[in-house]
Amino acid sequence: MFDTRANILLCGCGAVGTMAAVALERSGCAAVTAVLRSNFSVVEQKGFTIDSVDHGRLTGWHPSYIARSVENAMKHGPFQFIVIALKALPDIYSIPELIAPAVTPFESTIVLIQNGIGIEQPFINAFPRSTILSGVSMIGAHQLSSGVIRHDRSDILHLGPIYNASISREKEDELAALFSSLYTSGGASCLLTENITWMRWKKLVWNASFNSVCAMTGLDSGAIIDAGGVETIIRPVMDKINSIAKASGHTLPDGIQQLMIDSMPREMHFRPSMLVDVERGNPMEIEVIVGNPLRIAQELGCETPILRMIYEHLKLVQWRIRRAKTGSRLQK
Amino acid sequence: MFDTRANILLCGCGAVGTMAAVALERSGCAAVTAVLRSNFSVVEQKGFTIDSVDHGRLTGWHPSYIARSVENAMKHGPFQFIVIALKALPDIYSIPELIAPAVTPFESTIVLIQNGIGIEQPFINAFPRSTILSGVSMIGAHQLSSGVIRHDRSDILHLGPIYNASISREKEDELAALFSSLYTSGGASCLLTENITWMRWKKLVWNASFNSVCAMTGLDSGAIIDAGGVETIIRPVMDKINSIAKASGHTLPDGIQQLMIDSMPREMHFRPSMLVDVERGNPMEIEVIVGNPLRIAQELGCETPILRMIYEHLKLVQWRIRRAKTGSRLQK
Repeated sequence: MFDTRANILLCGCGAVGTMAAVALERSGCAAVTAVLRSNFSVVEQKGFTIDSVDHGRLTGWHPSYIARSVENAMKHGPFQFIVIALKALPDIYSIPELIAPAVTPFESTIVLIQNGIGIEQPFINAFPRSTILSGVSMIGAHQLSSGVIRHDRSDILHLGPIYNASISREKEDELAALFSSLYTSGGASCLLTENITWMRWKKLVWNASFNSVCAMTGLDSGAIIDAGGVETIIRPVMDKINSIAKASGHTLPDGIQQLMIDSMPREMHFRPSMLVDVERGNPMEIEVIVGNPLRIAQELGCETPILRMIYEHLKLVQWRIRRAKTGSRLQK
Repeated sequence: MFDTRANILLCGCGAVGTMAAVALERSGCAAVTAVLRSNFSVVEQKGFTIDSVDHGRLTGWHPSYIARSVENAMKHGPFQFIVIALKALPDIYSIPELIAPAVTPFESTIVLIQNGIGIEQPFINAFPRSTILSGVSMIGAHQLSSGVIRHDRSDILHLGPIYNASISREKEDELAALFSSLYTSGGASCLLTENITWMRWKKLVWNASFNSVCAMTGLDSGAIIDAGGVETIIRPVMDKINSIAKASGHTLPDGIQQLMIDSMPREMHFRPSMLVDVERGNPMEIEVIVGNPLRIAQELGCETPILRMIYEHLKLVQWRIRRAKTGSRLQK
């Protein structure tokens, strides 16, 4: 089965995407063509510099091929797997449009390694004949500067198919097993699950609460705890996410709220992605972390005044970030 | 009645306080002792530099006396009126404690020129034998730098007594009339009202909504309109303030929400006080603008999930501001 290398396109070569590329390449059974944007020139000249808890220190590392765009990557296709490790920003850009030229119907499997809930639907709509594998990453990794990555918490990727009636379930499970096997034999860990959406809801309990409130207040997770925000905001939001999950058929463990609060001790002073984004003036993943759970709640008839208010505030902040970006682009 | 000058202590000599001092002094019937903090040295050396829509250009202007503290001001007492134009920050400092040494029971009238609702109660509690006059200022004035003031919208002060059963209503009305007469004869405008609390609720419709949301999102009032925030957040918050006001016995005009939205056209791009505060790292008046209406709602049994969530977020931001202030003070 592994006699020929699996041909893989990777879109999004930040910290998470790059560590996925490392694992896949190190399996010896995959050739990765990575599409890079802001760090293309640095990586073309010097490769990645990686300090990894799983793989040790790598200097001058690069995947089989790098490209500046999906179009430029096409010459290395066709691709069996198309791995998406871009930020999920449906209010800013359409990833299905971006990857469309590289998707071969029935042949290309799309692997999503992204935050949030409900992220798969645009891909199902755009590529009804492709298997969609959905992944929730538990990695701790950051790009310190362009092409320089610190990977300090082991790469554990939870993965499962989003089953699609037009494709045989057996084939979907096989593709998930193949991808998982590549990933894991490369020195990271890819755990198969039959209910990846459950896993997404579980992770969302932390993300929709702490990530949002940190972004709105400029505080890290430990400061939110110190300032008394857990009881006043975090727990009510967690309760609501828990109840939306349940209403949508995903019953989370009893006491999930406290488990999630305890999962990130205050001493860690964790700075979640949306806080980092707002401070750097980058768009935040508000639609997949807050907007989609809200829309799901609405379809299910759940009242969500608090979550909606947080969402509407975040949308105004996003508007400010986008306006500043547009302004600075116009000035160039 | 105006044969001898009224002796007035003024606490808080920012833009609003200074313009009050100008009006009172220019009446020729009042001697103002102003307590200055950050701008004391500049004003002691060069006086105020004022560009005023009501009073023209004043250079080297100062009130009768200036002092660094209430204690230092005492030698110019006793004071018939004690005018408070400090920011209302009950979570940071107690103004009743600050002015206590200067308050002569039955003799000193306290005049509050401050934002928010429910601000009078701490003064009623601390000084049950003093007349309390409560003022809502409609001035447009800013301190551009220490001691330099631009006053660009006429000074209209709405004023009325907070009637107190232990003092004769006649005396309270007389004192209000006297203060109003001093203020108005000095070239500004002080309009007497029997229901100053109604006026406070009216102003709060704008303040609790726009001021809060601007502070949380970093947008000015015009940008909130451009970004679509009026329908998603501003109007629901205005509706709630309107209904709390009504529940507390203060029926505001029909359509007050739209009147308030229209009162500040988007072209003005107004930057309300809490936005200016958060950007400068100064504490915001969240307790009197959001906290007090919430507490009043709670006493009246009104549900306020949205307003509460805004309040809890603002409290976390306030915590961050205070922590930064403490940190920078410790570093000195």
